[in-house]
Amino acid sequence: MGEKSSNNCGAEEVVENKQVIFRDYVTGYPKESDMYIKTSNINNLKLPRGSNGVLLKNLYLSCDPTMQFRMRKIPHSPSHQSESYVPGSVINGFGVGEVLDSGNPKLKAGDLVWGTTTWEEYSLIQNPESLFKIEHTDDDDVPLSYYTGILGMPGITAYAGLYEVNDPPKKGECVFISAASGAVGQLVGQFAKSMDCYVVGSAGTQEKVDLLKNKLGFDDAFNYKEEPDLDAALKRYFPDGIDLYFEQVGGKMLDAVLMNMKVHGRITVCGMISQYNLSQPQPLNNLMQILFKRLTIKGFTHRDYHHLYPKFLATILPYIRQNKIEYVEDIVVGLENGPKALVGLFSGLNFGKQLVRVSH
Amino acid sequence: MGEKSSNNCGAEEVVENKQVIFRDYVTGYPKESDMYIKTSNINNLKLPRGSNGVLLKNLYLSCDPTMQFRMRKIPHSPSHQSESYVPGSVINGFGVGEVLDSGNPKLKAGDLVWGTTTWEEYSLIQNPESLFKIEHTDDDDVPLSYYTGILGMPGITAYAGLYEVNDPPKKGECVFISAASGAVGQLVGQFAKSMDCYVVGSAGTQEKVDLLKNKLGFDDAFNYKEEPDLDAALKRYFPDGIDLYFEQVGGKMLDAVLMNMKVHGRITVCGMISQYNLSQPQPLNNLMQILFKRLTIKGFTHRDYHHLYPKFLATILPYIRQNKIEYVEDIVVGLENGPKALVGLFSGLNFGKQLVRVSH
Repeated sequence: MGEKSSNNCGAEEVVENKQVIFRDYVTGYPKESDMYIKTSNINNLKLPRGSNGVLLKNLYLSCDPTMQFRMRKIPHSPSHQSESYVPGSVINGFGVGEVLDSGNPKLKAGDLVWGTTTWEEYSLIQNPESLFKIEHTDDDDVPLSYYTGILGMPGITAYAGLYEVNDPPKKGECVFISAASGAVGQLVGQFAKSMDCYVVGSAGTQEKVDLLKNKLGFDDAFNYKEEPDLDAALKRYFPDGIDLYFEQVGGKMLDAVLMNMKVHGRITVCGMISQYNLSQPQPLNNLMQILFKRLTIKGFTHRDYHHLYPKFLATILPYIRQNKIEYVEDIVVGLENGPKALVGLFSGLNFGKQLVRVSH
Repeated sequence: MGEKSSNNCGAEEVVENKQVIFRDYVTGYPKESDMYIKTSNINNLKLPRGSNGVLLKNLYLSCDPTMQFRMRKIPHSPSHQSESYVPGSVINGFGVGEVLDSGNPKLKAGDLVWGTTTWEEYSLIQNPESLFKIEHTDDDDVPLSYYTGILGMPGITAYAGLYEVNDPPKKGECVFISAASGAVGQLVGQFAKSMDCYVVGSAGTQEKVDLLKNKLGFDDAFNYKEEPDLDAALKRYFPDGIDLYFEQVGGKMLDAVLMNMKVHGRITVCGMISQYNLSQPQPLNNLMQILFKRLTIKGFTHRDYHHLYPKFLATILPYIRQNKIEYVEDIVVGLENGPKALVGLFSGLNFGKQLVRVSH
C-alpha cells in the first residue's frame, strides 16, 4: 500500500506508488518474470492542473485471460481493439477504484468506479470514458470486488454470451460449458439452470468439479484432464447431443464437441484459452459437422454489448442481494502478487474469478 | 431409351428399363465401377392396381455431390435425412420426369415434375410427396433440365444460402465463393452481383475462371490449383478482407479464408466437397479467428428452406425469361454415362451444373 511521507520542501507530499511493469514482449505463455514490481514516487495525490482525467486509488484489479494478447508485439486479436503493452511501462486491465481527484464533470472525488485502469496503486486515467460509476452505499452488502467479475466485464460477457449472441437456451435444452468454474462459466451455468436447462461443465481439477456440482447447481461436471477420450466423455453426459455449447477453451475440446452437437445446435465462442499461447494451435478435424448438423457458431466480445450493461445490472443485482446466485472469487492480496495470479490463469491455478486486492 | 416390345402373350407389353445399380458400400472417393448398368423388364407402363404412387418417365437426372454420402454404409451426414443406397438396388437423386400413370390425386398422366426419383428410365415412386409439379407449357423457353439446377435443389440452395442463412449481402460488401462455377456457386455469384457486391470466385481450371469472369459477371476469379499460397491469393483479391464467404469446398481453403475475414464477417457453409472422401479430413488451424473477428459461421441444407420455393420461383423465373441471369449446364446424354458424370464431380470434371439426359 502506498505510504505518504513528507518531503523536505514541505510544500508537496511524496507518495509511494507500487507498479507492475511489463518487461518485454512475450511469445508463448506469459511468465511471472515477464513483469516486475517497481515503486515510484508521486509528488502528491492531485491531478495535474487542467487535466480532464481522474486520479484513482485502485482497490481491486482483475486478472483476465485476454491480457496476454497485449503482451505480444503484435496482438493477434484485432477485434479486441487493444494495443500491446509497452515494455518498461505499467500494464493495464479492468479494475475497481476510488476517485481521489477528478477533472471530469461526470466523476468526483469519493466516487467508486470500475473499468479500465492501470496496475499500480494510484492511476492517472487521462481518458475516463471507460470508467463506469458504481452506485454503492456503505451498507451495501454487494462486495466491491464483484465489479471485476459478476458485475463487470465477465458478468456482461456471460449475460450477452448466453442471451444475445445465439438464440438463448430454452427449457430442457442441453447446455455444455467449458472452463465452467471460471469468472464467466460459473455465471453462464447458473443463468442456464435458471432457464431449466440440463447443464454440464468441464473444469481442470476435482475441487472445481465439486464446486460446479455442489455449490453452483450444475447437473453434472467432469475433469477434462482425467478424460483420455473427450468424445466418449461428452457422449456419457450428452447421449442425445448438445444444444448449446459455451466455448471457452478451444482445441481438442471444440473438436470433440463438434462430434456431439445436435442438429441445429449453437456454439457461442467466448474464448479459446487452451490455444492462446501455443506456437501452433491444435488442428481441428471435425469441421464438416458444421454442415452435416447445420450448426451455428458465433464468436463475440463483450465490447459489442456494453449498451446492455444497465439492463444486465438491473437483472443481476437483485439476484445477488437475494442470494439467488453463487459467485466464487479467488482473491490474492497485494499488487506484488498480481503477476503470479495473472499467469496462473493459463494453467488453471485460479479457483473462481481471479483478482488482486490492492487496497481496501 | 426404353424400347417397347410385345411379348408372346399379347396381353402385356414388356418394356426395357435401363438402371444404374449400386454395387456395394464405398469408402473414400466413389468410382465409376461402384455402379453398374442393368437392363430389367417392366411388364407394362402402368401402376400396380391400388397404388397411390406415380409412374415416371425420367427425362433428366441430377448429379449432386451429396449423393456420395449415401454410398457409405453409415452416411456421415445425419442432417441430410437420407439413408444409404442398398447394394444391388437402383440409386436415386433429384431429377425431372413425366408422369405416365398416377394413383395420387395431385398428379396426373402428362404432368411434368421434379424431385426425388430413381436412376433408371422408368421410376415407380411409391411416395410422391417429394415430387413437385412443374408448370410448363410447350412454348415455354425455359429448359426442363433447369429443374435439376437453377430451378431445383441447387437454385433453392443458392437462394436460401445467400439470403436466409446469414444476414444477406449488402451493397459494396466483399463476397467470396468457392466452387464458384458449379450449380450453386454460379447462381450465388450472380445474386450477389445483383446486390452490387464485389464478388470473387475460385474454381479449378482456367476455363472455369474465364467463365466466371467473362460470362457470369464475377468481378474476379482465380484457379485455386495454381495458387501455392491460398492466404496470399485471398489477400490479393480481398486486401481489406471478406464480408461474406459462401463455403463449398472446406479444408485448406476454409483455413485460409478464416485468416482473411473481416471483423463480424459471415461464413455460410453449403458444402465441403474437398473433404467428403478423405480418410481423414484436412486439419484446420485458424479457428481462433472465429473469436478474434467475432465471426458467424452457419451450416445449412436446402431441406430447411423448401417452404421458400414458391417465392424463389416467382423471383427467378422472370430473370431467366428476360436473360438477366446466366446458367451453365454440363449435360451428358444417356443413363449409361451417368456414373462417370457423377464421380467426375469429385475431381471437378464438370463445367457448370452436371446432369444426365435420360430421354427427351
